[in-house]
Amino acid sequence: MQNTVKQNALKRLKSAKGHLDHVIKQIEQEKYCIDILQQSLAVQSALRAVDNVILKGHLEEHVAHAMHGKDKGKSIQEIVDVFEKARK
Amino acid sequence: MQNTVKQNALKRLKSAKGHLDHVIKQIEQEKYCIDILQQSLAVQSALRAVDNVILKGHLEEHVAHAMHGKDKGKSIQEIVDVFEKARK
Amino acid sequence: MQNTVKQNALKRLKSAKGHLDHVIKQIEQEKYCIDILQQSLAVQSALRAVDNVILKGHLEEHVAHAMHGKDKGKSIQEIVDVFEKARK
Amino acid sequence: MQNTVKQNALKRLKSAKGHLDHVIKQIEQEKYCIDILQQSLAVQSALRAVDNVILKGHLEEHVAHAMHGKDKGKSIQEIVDVFEKARK
Repeated sequence: MQNTVKQNALKRLKSAKGHLDHVIKQIEQEKYCIDILQQSLAVQSALRAVDNVILKGHLEEHVAHAMHGKDKGKSIQEIVDVFEKARK
Repeated sequence: MQNTVKQNALKRLKSAKGHLDHVIKQIEQEKYCIDILQQSLAVQSALRAVDNVILKGHLEEHVAHAMHGKDKGKSIQEIVDVFEKARK
Repeated sequence: MQNTVKQNALKRLKSAKGHLDHVIKQIEQEKYCIDILQQSLAVQSALRAVDNVILKGHLEEHVAHAMHGKDKGKSIQEIVDVFEKARK
Repeated sequence: MQNTVKQNALKRLKSAKGHLDHVIKQIEQEKYCIDILQQSLAVQSALRAVDNVILKGHLEEHVAHAMHGKDKGKSIQEIVDVFEKARK
Protein backbone atom coordinates (compact mmCIF):
# COMPACT_ATOMS: atom_id res chain seq x y z
CA MET A 1 0.00 0.00 0.00
CA GLN A 2 1.38 3.41 -0.95
CA ASN A 3 2.13 5.55 2.10
CA THR A 4 -0.02 8.46 0.88
CA VAL A 5 -3.01 6.12 0.48
CA LYS A 6 -2.39 4.64 3.93
CA GLN A 7 -2.14 8.01 5.68
CA ASN A 8 -5.09 9.47 3.79
CA ALA A 9 -7.30 6.44 4.54
CA LEU A 10 -6.28 6.30 8.22
CA LYS A 11 -6.98 9.98 8.74
CA ARG A 12 -10.42 9.66 7.17
CA LEU A 13 -11.27 6.46 9.05
CA LYS A 14 -10.29 7.92 12.42
CA SER A 15 -12.46 10.94 11.67
CA ALA A 16 -15.33 8.61 10.69
CA LYS A 17 -14.86 6.70 13.94
CA GLY A 18 -15.15 9.92 15.93
CA HIS A 19 -18.27 10.73 13.97
CA LEU A 20 -19.66 7.27 14.75
CA ASP A 21 -18.99 7.87 18.47
CA HIS A 22 -21.11 10.98 18.13
CA VAL A 23 -23.97 8.96 16.60
CA ILE A 24 -23.76 6.54 19.55
CA LYS A 25 -23.96 9.48 21.97
CA GLN A 26 -26.93 10.91 20.08
CA ILE A 27 -28.80 7.66 20.59
CA GLU A 28 -27.79 7.38 24.26
CA GLN A 29 -29.16 10.89 24.73
CA GLU A 30 -32.27 10.05 22.68
CA LYS A 31 -31.83 12.89 20.22
CA TYR A 32 -34.27 13.45 17.37
CA CYS A 33 -34.29 10.41 15.05
CA ILE A 34 -33.94 12.42 11.85
CA ASP A 35 -30.82 14.16 13.20
CA ILE A 36 -29.36 10.76 14.11
CA LEU A 37 -30.14 9.39 10.65
CA GLN A 38 -28.48 12.40 9.01
CA GLN A 39 -25.33 11.83 11.06
CA SER A 40 -25.32 8.10 10.33
CA LEU A 41 -25.59 8.88 6.62
CA ALA A 42 -22.67 11.31 6.93
CA VAL A 43 -20.53 8.54 8.46
CA GLN A 44 -21.45 6.24 5.57
CA SER A 45 -20.59 8.96 3.07
CA ALA A 46 -17.17 9.35 4.75
CA LEU A 47 -16.59 5.58 4.53
CA ARG A 48 -17.47 5.61 0.83
CA ALA A 49 -14.85 8.31 0.33
CA VAL A 50 -12.30 6.03 2.05
CA ASP A 51 -13.31 3.22 -0.31
CA ASN A 52 -12.54 5.45 -3.29
CA VAL A 53 -9.08 6.23 -1.91
CA ILE A 54 -8.33 2.54 -1.32
CA LEU A 55 -9.73 1.38 -4.66
CA LYS A 56 -7.66 3.96 -6.52
CA GLY A 57 -4.54 2.89 -4.64
CA HIS A 58 -5.32 -0.73 -5.40
CA LEU A 59 -5.73 -0.08 -9.11
CA GLU A 60 -2.51 1.93 -9.22
CA GLU A 61 -0.41 -0.52 -7.29
CA HIS A 62 -1.63 -4.05 -7.80
CA VAL A 63 -3.78 -4.15 -10.86
CA ALA A 64 -1.27 -2.82 -13.35
CA HIS A 65 0.96 -5.77 -12.50
CA ALA A 66 -1.78 -8.35 -12.27
CA MET A 67 -3.40 -7.38 -15.56
CA HIS A 68 -0.85 -9.20 -17.68
CA GLY A 69 -0.27 -12.22 -15.52
CA LYS A 70 -2.17 -15.33 -14.64
CA ASP A 71 -4.07 -13.38 -11.98
CA LYS A 72 -5.77 -11.12 -14.52
CA GLY A 73 -9.12 -12.90 -14.29
CA LYS A 74 -9.02 -12.97 -10.49
CA SER A 75 -8.09 -9.28 -10.26
CA ILE A 76 -10.91 -8.25 -12.54
CA GLN A 77 -13.46 -10.38 -10.73
CA GLU A 78 -12.39 -8.88 -7.39
CA ILE A 79 -13.01 -5.37 -8.68
CA VAL A 80 -16.39 -6.29 -10.17
CA ASP A 81 -17.36 -8.01 -6.90
CA VAL A 82 -16.48 -4.90 -4.91
CA PHE A 83 -18.38 -2.71 -7.39
CA GLU A 84 -21.43 -4.95 -7.07
CA LYS A 85 -21.26 -5.25 -3.29
CA ALA A 86 -20.65 -1.52 -2.89
CA ARG A 87 -24.06 -0.79 -4.36
CA LYS A 88 -26.00 -3.16 -2.13
CA MET B 1 -37.21 6.93 21.40
CA GLN B 2 -38.61 3.52 22.28
CA ASN B 3 -36.27 1.57 24.55
CA THR B 4 -36.18 -1.47 22.23
CA VAL B 5 -35.12 0.75 19.32
CA LYS B 6 -32.48 2.44 21.48
CA GLN B 7 -30.98 -0.83 22.74
CA ASN B 8 -31.12 -2.46 19.31
CA ALA B 9 -29.47 0.53 17.62
CA LEU B 10 -26.79 0.90 20.31
CA LYS B 11 -25.87 -2.78 20.16
CA ARG B 12 -25.53 -2.63 16.37
CA LEU B 13 -23.58 0.64 16.39
CA LYS B 14 -21.10 -0.63 18.99
CA SER B 15 -20.58 -3.74 16.90
CA ALA B 16 -20.07 -1.55 13.80
CA LYS B 17 -17.55 0.54 15.72
CA GLY B 18 -15.58 -2.60 16.62
CA HIS B 19 -15.71 -3.58 12.98
CA LEU B 20 -14.43 -0.13 11.98
CA ASP B 21 -11.53 -0.52 14.42
CA HIS B 22 -10.68 -3.71 12.57
CA VAL B 23 -10.64 -1.85 9.23
CA ILE B 24 -8.26 0.72 10.75
CA LYS B 25 -5.96 -2.10 11.92
CA GLN B 26 -6.11 -3.73 8.49
CA ILE B 27 -4.83 -0.50 6.94
CA GLU B 28 -2.15 0.00 9.60
CA GLN B 29 -0.95 -3.53 8.84
CA GLU B 30 -1.21 -2.90 5.09
CA LYS B 31 -3.48 -5.85 4.40
CA TYR B 32 -4.74 -6.62 0.89
CA CYS B 33 -6.83 -3.71 -0.42
CA ILE B 34 -9.72 -5.88 -1.58
CA ASP B 35 -10.05 -7.44 1.88
CA ILE B 36 -10.08 -3.97 3.43
CA LEU B 37 -12.74 -2.79 0.97
CA GLN B 38 -14.90 -5.84 1.76
CA GLN B 39 -14.70 -5.06 5.47
CA SER B 40 -15.45 -1.38 4.93
CA LEU B 41 -18.51 -2.37 2.90
CA ALA B 42 -19.61 -4.68 5.72
CA VAL B 43 -19.44 -1.77 8.19
CA GLN B 44 -21.55 0.35 5.85
CA SER B 45 -24.07 -2.46 5.51
CA ALA B 46 -24.29 -2.67 9.32
CA LEU B 47 -24.89 1.09 9.51
CA ARG B 48 -27.66 0.84 6.92
CA ALA B 49 -29.31 -1.79 9.11
CA VAL B 50 -29.17 0.65 12.03
CA ASP B 51 -30.78 3.30 9.84
CA ASN B 52 -33.68 0.93 9.17
CA VAL B 53 -34.19 0.34 12.89
CA ILE B 54 -34.16 4.07 13.63
CA LEU B 55 -36.40 5.01 10.71
CA LYS B 56 -38.97 2.41 11.72
CA GLY B 57 -38.90 3.66 15.30
CA HIS B 58 -39.29 7.22 14.07
CA LEU B 59 -42.29 6.35 11.91
CA GLU B 60 -43.91 4.45 14.76
CA GLU B 61 -43.34 7.04 17.41
CA HIS B 62 -43.31 10.51 15.92
CA VAL B 63 -44.90 10.39 12.54
CA ALA B 64 -48.26 8.98 13.57
CA HIS B 65 -48.73 12.04 15.77
CA ALA B 66 -47.26 14.55 13.36
CA MET B 67 -49.28 13.35 10.38
CA HIS B 68 -52.43 15.14 11.44
CA GLY B 69 -50.93 18.28 12.86
CA LYS B 70 -49.32 21.38 11.48
CA ASP B 71 -46.00 19.52 11.25
CA LYS B 72 -47.30 17.06 8.64
CA GLY B 73 -45.49 18.75 5.75
CA LYS B 74 -42.26 19.04 7.72
CA SER B 75 -42.40 15.39 8.82
CA ILE B 76 -42.95 14.17 5.29
CA GLN B 77 -40.17 16.32 3.87
CA GLU B 78 -37.75 15.02 6.53
CA ILE B 79 -38.47 11.43 5.53
CA VAL B 80 -38.11 12.18 1.81
CA ASP B 81 -34.85 14.04 2.50
CA VAL B 82 -33.46 11.06 4.41
CA PHE B 83 -34.61 8.70 1.64
CA GLU B 84 -32.89 10.86 -0.96
CA LYS B 85 -29.69 11.36 1.02
CA ALA B 86 -29.53 7.67 1.93
CA ARG B 87 -29.11 6.78 -1.71
CA LYS B 88 -26.32 9.23 -2.44
CA MET C 1 -52.51 9.56 -6.71
CA GLN C 2 -52.43 13.36 -6.84
CA ASN C 3 -52.48 14.67 -10.41
CA THR C 4 -49.33 16.75 -9.95
CA VAL C 5 -47.44 13.68 -8.72
CA LYS C 6 -48.76 11.62 -11.63
CA GLN C 7 -47.81 14.19 -14.30
CA ASN C 8 -44.43 14.88 -12.72
CA ALA C 9 -43.59 11.17 -12.45
CA LEU C 10 -44.79 10.37 -15.99
CA LYS C 11 -42.78 13.21 -17.49
CA ARG C 12 -39.63 12.07 -15.70
CA LEU C 13 -40.18 8.38 -16.55
CA LYS C 14 -40.71 9.10 -20.25
CA SER C 15 -37.53 11.15 -20.27
CA ALA C 16 -35.71 8.28 -18.51
CA LYS C 17 -37.05 5.86 -21.10
CA GLY C 18 -35.69 8.02 -23.91
CA HIS C 19 -32.38 8.11 -22.07
CA LEU C 20 -32.44 4.31 -21.76
CA ASP C 21 -33.04 4.04 -25.53
CA HIS C 22 -29.90 6.07 -25.97
CA VAL C 23 -27.94 3.63 -23.77
CA ILE C 24 -29.21 0.74 -25.92
CA LYS C 25 -28.05 2.57 -29.06
CA GLN C 26 -24.65 3.24 -27.49
CA ILE C 27 -24.19 -0.48 -26.94
CA GLU C 28 -25.43 -1.38 -30.43
CA GLN C 29 -22.87 1.07 -31.80
CA GLU C 30 -20.19 -0.28 -29.44
CA LYS C 31 -19.38 3.10 -27.92
CA TYR C 32 -16.75 3.48 -25.19
CA CYS C 33 -17.75 1.45 -22.11
CA ILE C 34 -17.13 4.28 -19.64
CA ASP C 35 -19.43 6.61 -21.61
CA ILE C 36 -22.12 3.91 -21.59
CA LEU C 37 -21.72 3.39 -17.85
CA GLN C 38 -22.01 7.13 -17.23
CA GLN C 39 -25.26 7.24 -19.21
CA SER C 40 -26.65 4.16 -17.45
CA LEU C 41 -25.88 5.82 -14.11
CA ALA C 42 -27.68 8.96 -15.27
CA VAL C 43 -30.80 6.90 -16.05
CA GLN C 44 -30.65 5.34 -12.59
CA SER C 45 -30.28 8.77 -11.02
CA ALA C 46 -33.38 9.93 -12.94
CA LEU C 47 -35.32 6.90 -11.68
CA ARG C 48 -34.29 7.64 -8.10
CA ALA C 49 -35.67 11.15 -8.55
CA VAL C 50 -38.99 9.63 -9.67
CA ASP C 51 -38.97 7.43 -6.56
CA ASN C 52 -38.66 10.54 -4.40
CA VAL C 53 -41.65 12.13 -6.13
CA ILE C 54 -43.77 9.00 -5.68
CA LEU C 55 -42.72 8.40 -2.08
CA LYS C 56 -43.56 11.99 -1.15
CA GLY C 57 -46.95 11.69 -2.83
CA HIS C 58 -47.55 8.42 -1.02
CA LEU C 59 -46.71 9.90 2.37
CA GLU C 60 -48.92 12.92 1.72
CA GLU C 61 -51.89 11.01 0.44
CA HIS C 62 -52.08 7.59 2.01
CA VAL C 63 -49.95 7.56 5.09
CA ALA C 64 -51.62 10.39 6.93
CA HIS C 65 -54.85 8.42 6.85
CA ALA C 66 -53.31 5.03 7.51
CA MET C 67 -51.27 6.20 10.47
CA HIS C 68 -54.18 6.18 12.87
CA GLY C 69 -56.00 3.13 11.64
CA LYS C 70 -55.48 -0.58 11.79
CA ASP C 71 -53.12 -0.37 8.80
CA LYS C 72 -50.55 1.71 10.68
CA GLY C 73 -48.16 -1.21 11.17
CA LYS C 74 -48.49 -2.31 7.55
CA SER C 75 -47.96 1.23 6.22
CA ILE C 76 -44.83 1.71 8.28
CA GLN C 77 -43.39 -1.65 7.30
CA GLU C 78 -43.99 -0.88 3.60
CA ILE C 79 -42.03 2.36 3.89
CA VAL C 80 -39.17 0.69 5.76
CA ASP C 81 -39.11 -2.13 3.18
CA VAL C 82 -38.86 0.38 0.33
CA PHE C 83 -36.14 2.28 2.19
CA GLU C 84 -34.19 -0.93 2.69
CA LYS C 85 -34.67 -2.21 -0.85
CA ALA C 86 -33.84 1.20 -2.33
CA ARG C 87 -30.33 0.96 -0.92
CA LYS C 88 -29.58 -2.48 -2.28
CA MET D 1 -16.75 -4.52 -27.03
CA GLN D 2 -16.79 -8.31 -26.84
CA ASN D 3 -19.82 -9.78 -28.57
CA THR D 4 -20.92 -11.77 -25.49
CA VAL D 5 -20.89 -8.59 -23.40
CA LYS D 6 -22.81 -6.71 -26.09
CA GLN D 7 -25.51 -9.38 -26.45
CA ASN D 8 -25.81 -9.89 -22.69
CA ALA D 9 -26.10 -6.15 -22.02
CA LEU D 10 -28.60 -5.57 -24.85
CA LYS D 11 -30.82 -8.43 -23.71
CA ARG D 12 -30.86 -7.10 -20.15
CA LEU D 13 -31.43 -3.48 -21.22
CA LYS D 14 -34.35 -4.40 -23.48
CA SER D 15 -35.88 -6.35 -20.62
CA ALA D 16 -35.35 -3.35 -18.32
CA LYS D 17 -37.01 -1.09 -20.89
CA GLY D 18 -40.07 -3.38 -20.98
CA HIS D 19 -40.10 -3.26 -17.20
CA LEU D 20 -39.91 0.55 -17.30
CA ASP D 21 -42.88 0.62 -19.69
CA HIS D 22 -44.77 -1.35 -17.06
CA VAL D 23 -43.91 1.25 -14.40
CA ILE D 24 -45.22 3.99 -16.71
CA LYS D 25 -48.47 2.04 -17.16
CA GLN D 26 -48.77 1.54 -13.41
CA ILE D 27 -48.64 5.31 -12.92
CA GLU D 28 -51.07 5.99 -15.77
CA GLN D 29 -53.47 3.56 -14.11
CA GLU D 30 -52.78 5.09 -10.67
CA LYS D 31 -51.75 1.83 -9.05
CA TYR D 32 -50.69 1.66 -5.40
CA CYS D 33 -47.57 3.81 -4.86
CA ILE D 34 -45.66 1.13 -2.96
CA ASP D 35 -46.15 -1.36 -5.81
CA ILE D 36 -44.89 1.26 -8.27
CA LEU D 37 -41.85 1.98 -6.10
CA GLN D 38 -41.06 -1.74 -5.86
CA GLN D 39 -41.16 -2.04 -9.66
CA SER D 40 -39.05 1.08 -10.14
CA LEU D 41 -36.47 -0.37 -7.75
CA ALA D 42 -36.49 -3.62 -9.72
CA VAL D 43 -35.69 -1.70 -12.92
CA GLN D 44 -32.81 0.04 -11.16
CA SER D 45 -31.53 -3.30 -9.89
CA ALA D 46 -31.61 -4.65 -13.47
CA LEU D 47 -29.65 -1.61 -14.68
CA ARG D 48 -27.03 -2.13 -11.98
CA ALA D 49 -26.63 -5.71 -13.23
CA VAL D 50 -26.01 -4.33 -16.74
CA ASP D 51 -23.38 -1.98 -15.30
CA ASN D 52 -21.57 -4.98 -13.81
CA VAL D 53 -21.54 -6.74 -17.18
CA ILE D 54 -20.19 -3.67 -18.95
CA LEU D 55 -17.61 -2.85 -16.28
CA LYS D 56 -16.28 -6.41 -16.36
CA GLY D 57 -16.07 -6.32 -20.16
CA HIS D 58 -14.29 -2.97 -19.97
CA LEU D 59 -11.73 -4.24 -17.48
CA GLU D 60 -11.10 -7.36 -19.57
CA GLU D 61 -10.80 -5.61 -22.88
CA HIS D 62 -9.44 -2.12 -22.43
CA VAL D 63 -7.81 -1.87 -19.08
CA ALA D 64 -5.29 -4.66 -19.46
CA HIS D 65 -3.81 -2.79 -22.41
CA ALA D 66 -4.11 0.66 -20.92
CA MET D 67 -2.52 -0.30 -17.62
CA HIS D 68 1.01 -0.24 -18.96
CA GLY D 69 0.74 2.67 -21.32
CA LYS D 70 0.50 6.40 -20.97
CA ASP D 71 -3.25 6.11 -20.40
CA LYS D 72 -2.84 4.21 -17.12
CA GLY D 73 -3.69 7.22 -14.95
CA LYS D 74 -6.70 8.12 -17.10
CA SER D 75 -8.01 4.54 -17.10
CA ILE D 76 -7.77 4.27 -13.34
CA GLN D 77 -9.43 7.62 -12.76
CA GLU D 78 -12.30 6.64 -15.07
CA ILE D 79 -12.95 3.49 -13.05
CA VAL D 80 -12.79 5.35 -9.74
CA ASP D 81 -15.14 8.02 -11.11
CA VAL D 82 -17.66 5.38 -12.17
CA PHE D 83 -17.33 3.65 -8.78
CA GLU D 84 -17.95 6.95 -7.02
CA LYS D 85 -20.83 8.04 -9.23
CA ALA D 86 -22.43 4.57 -9.07
CA ARG D 87 -22.95 4.99 -5.35
CA LYS D 88 -24.58 8.41 -5.52
